[in-house]
Amino acid sequence: MTTKFEALLEKIYTIHDLEKALMLLSWDRETNMPPKGDTARIDQMTTLRRLAHEMFVTDEMGELIATAVAEQANAPYDSNEASQLRYLQRHYADQRKLTPDYVKRSSEVSGQARPAWVQARAESNFALFQPWLEQVVELCQELAELYGYEDDPYDALLDKYEPNMKTAEVRAIFDAVKKESIPLRQAIAANADAVDDAPVHQPFAIDQQKQFVRAITAAIGYDYDRGHLGTVVHPFATSFTRDDARITTRWYPDFLNPALFGGLHEAGHAMYEQGTHPDLYRTPLARGTSLGIHESQSRMMENIVGRSRGFWEAHYPSLQALFPEQLNRYRVEDFYRAVNKVQPSFIRVEADELTYNFHIILRFELEQALLNGDLAVKDLPTAWNDKMQELLGVTPPNDAQGCLQDVHWSRPGFGYFPTYALGNLYAAQFYETAVAQNPTIATAMAQGQTTALVAWLRENIHQHGRKFTPGELVQRVTGQPLSHHAFVRYVTAKFSDIYRL
Amino acid sequence: MTTKFEALLEKIYTIHDLEKALMLLSWDRETNMPPKGDTARIDQMTTLRRLAHEMFVTDEMGELIATAVAEQANAPYDSNEASQLRYLQRHYADQRKLTPDYVKRSSEVSGQARPAWVQARAESNFALFQPWLEQVVELCQELAELYGYEDDPYDALLDKYEPNMKTAEVRAIFDAVKKESIPLRQAIAANADAVDDAPVHQPFAIDQQKQFVRAITAAIGYDYDRGHLGTVVHPFATSFTRDDARITTRWYPDFLNPALFGGLHEAGHAMYEQGTHPDLYRTPLARGTSLGIHESQSRMMENIVGRSRGFWEAHYPSLQALFPEQLNRYRVEDFYRAVNKVQPSFIRVEADELTYNFHIILRFELEQALLNGDLAVKDLPTAWNDKMQELLGVTPPNDAQGCLQDVHWSRPGFGYFPTYALGNLYAAQFYETAVAQNPTIATAMAQGQTTALVAWLRENIHQHGRKFTPGELVQRVTGQPLSHHAFVRYVTAKFSDIYRL
Repeated sequence: MTTKFEALLEKIYTIHDLEKALMLLSWDRETNMPPKGDTARIDQMTTLRRLAHEMFVTDEMGELIATAVAEQANAPYDSNEASQLRYLQRHYADQRKLTPDYVKRSSEVSGQARPAWVQARAESNFALFQPWLEQVVELCQELAELYGYEDDPYDALLDKYEPNMKTAEVRAIFDAVKKESIPLRQAIAANADAVDDAPVHQPFAIDQQKQFVRAITAAIGYDYDRGHLGTVVHPFATSFTRDDARITTRWYPDFLNPALFGGLHEAGHAMYEQGTHPDLYRTPLARGTSLGIHESQSRMMENIVGRSRGFWEAHYPSLQALFPEQLNRYRVEDFYRAVNKVQPSFIRVEADELTYNFHIILRFELEQALLNGDLAVKDLPTAWNDKMQELLGVTPPNDAQGCLQDVHWSRPGFGYFPTYALGNLYAAQFYETAVAQNPTIATAMAQGQTTALVAWLRENIHQHGRKFTPGELVQRVTGQPLSHHAFVRYVTAKFSDIYRL
Repeated sequence: MTTKFEALLEKIYTIHDLEKALMLLSWDRETNMPPKGDTARIDQMTTLRRLAHEMFVTDEMGELIATAVAEQANAPYDSNEASQLRYLQRHYADQRKLTPDYVKRSSEVSGQARPAWVQARAESNFALFQPWLEQVVELCQELAELYGYEDDPYDALLDKYEPNMKTAEVRAIFDAVKKESIPLRQAIAANADAVDDAPVHQPFAIDQQKQFVRAITAAIGYDYDRGHLGTVVHPFATSFTRDDARITTRWYPDFLNPALFGGLHEAGHAMYEQGTHPDLYRTPLARGTSLGIHESQSRMMENIVGRSRGFWEAHYPSLQALFPEQLNRYRVEDFYRAVNKVQPSFIRVEADELTYNFHIILRFELEQALLNGDLAVKDLPTAWNDKMQELLGVTPPNDAQGCLQDVHWSRPGFGYFPTYALGNLYAAQFYETAVAQNPTIATAMAQGQTTALVAWLRENIHQHGRKFTPGELVQRVTGQPLSHHAFVRYVTAKFSDIYRL
């Protein structure tokens, strides 16, 4: 006899398949679609998104979830049944709060704000984007009211990317990161000459770069039998099932870092998806639990693994073999230091491992000020530049390299940015725990081996998919809530060594 | 005020978008998907196919079509409105005839028959496939009854690929082709040494092949701003809109023909889709009207254009520049003759322009015998080999190179094969008409220029999409029904010259 829970899952499978087809439409748009195909693609994506939403928010679905919850009342908290139902209840309540009118207006504003942003950035002319950003801020304010909140309107937005996390909690952690990292950044700045990044700034043939990126992503544990490497302008990872989780990267002819660390970063994301438990197949739990936890997996592979000394001791010889003319004159230690150069910069996506968080903290603080009405949109460029000076000690020469650099604010997506920095902090805390629980992980890492680390991540994080909220997961895995401590210990030790502080 | 017709189109857009998403799932499966992604992909495709079908076959849709037909009763036959409604009425009636039970069984048998066929072919063991083919034949018989027919059960099946065409009509044409082509094939065989295909059988670096295929497909009129070239095992073309119509081909390291003629063939298909009228956007009319007419466009580009002397006089120098070592010792005339070698072979997909039709006629005759019960499945291998001897004068050494070579019979798709040969005949008849109406087309073709030809195809064929049935189209365009005459004239003139008959 079919249980209510099984009947519910059958309906969820259909919606899931639609959403995965939608993700393929999106993946293909970035990787293969000819530009003129975009009009039809937007229509196709809009249709699938609408159908998936309509199927999910019916009254019948609400009743089915409720009866399944009653039926499974005795399922243990950790069980797949209880976890599926927790997620579905929460997601259903959220989706029902989004009125069709809001969805339509939000989509219209985003559609028009994006080209306005492209032009504003190209001309470094904030005035062109200002009226759209004003509408985006209003949409964010409206969204916070639709979702509802207890203390802080920003909570309602953050919650969509980092479920159950509160603004006050993030603020306390970010303040501690600032307090500890600014002196470290200043000490490094005083010793900037200690690191030369010339090795990575040379001509590098793209075919060889591809060969190397394929080799190192496979070496850290990304499974190409269940994966695919594509080329795009803005790298991302996506998955259509744990058995088809794809990565993308970009290739610069005269700068190695974007391809290497982009590839490792996206492989970290995709390995999380590849590692979800097969029993979660075709359900919304078969993916990473939050953007922050997802980012912890990508940052783990990009930085803690990919920018470690052991990693380059293992892989530098094969990189030299591909590029003897460029690299034979540099020792592995030179290369290791080159990929770890700390240098305050204007552009978030080019930032190093230490200063990256400052870019995020700046956006986190400005988003709150805009949302609460403490900052008018017209004053954003000045506020941006003031904060850049405070946090990074530099002032952008223009708004294109300042407050116009990111696409994110062309849609009502406030609350997304903080997850990037949370990822760095989660990653450090997870890694510290992993090594404490299994010291072999550290000795293997010193030789560039990640098998033990990945096994630990699979067991403790990947397999659970979305069964637990990020707060529950970090508590289960590390025995305490997220804090700045592990990250500060990690960067202090690493950069004190590299910069001989 | 919204008309009933407009309301109907709104519903059709949704179904169309689902079907295009389904086609992308399928395209991606062949081009990019890692093999292990297949389980989920089949689930996703099944879901989208089911949703599209369910949305279309509702009673409400039937009523909406009927009221729109009444509303548009005065629309001219050629109008988009009348043409859309003719197609939708017909398609709706067909889809309603397919019972869910039949669809389910058909899908199950196909799903299991395919791996059985793969194994049977690999081992050249017909007995492994026989029980599945028996079920496929039964499903074809059942399908003919579901669809219904007047004279011949095969009519019901053929109709799905070549709407309104009758078996008797195809038989008469194919018999005439046989009668005229067998003596020509025999005359060529007596003079086989006149052509040497050594030039195309040499090592050819794949990167340069890609460069050349891209250049010649663009040269004949395939628009890469609205297209994409991918690599697959079995080439095909697909379109998600006229502005995103993709081609694929394959690359052999030591044989040029598959990449060159595969690329030109698929470009012909995709140019048809790129040429459909923008007003047909997002409707079922925005694609080729039948498999046979579609094949006429691919064969036109592959053979009438791509295997013409003028084409190679224009493009051979750049091919020589890419492969000087292989080709500088051959004149353009040598190369032209090499790509036109006629040689009876066992495998359909490797057949030349003249003998290809025999492979199809054989399948057409055997499908009817199986369907009518005149041939038992167990006797197929013998019947196959007898017909090969009659039509091509050769006998396959085993069933893998005989009746097991094609995937088509692993699904209930009898009626599909004839469209391949019909395409050759349509192509010749269209081309003869085009040149008669505009002699510039022939003089330009003698210099490898296709602009005038493509403009004629756009005007007379492409833009109409599926507005007319193939019978209507060929009558409108050429002033008479399809016959074998133009094809026979074309191959007789061409091969008499090449083989000095």
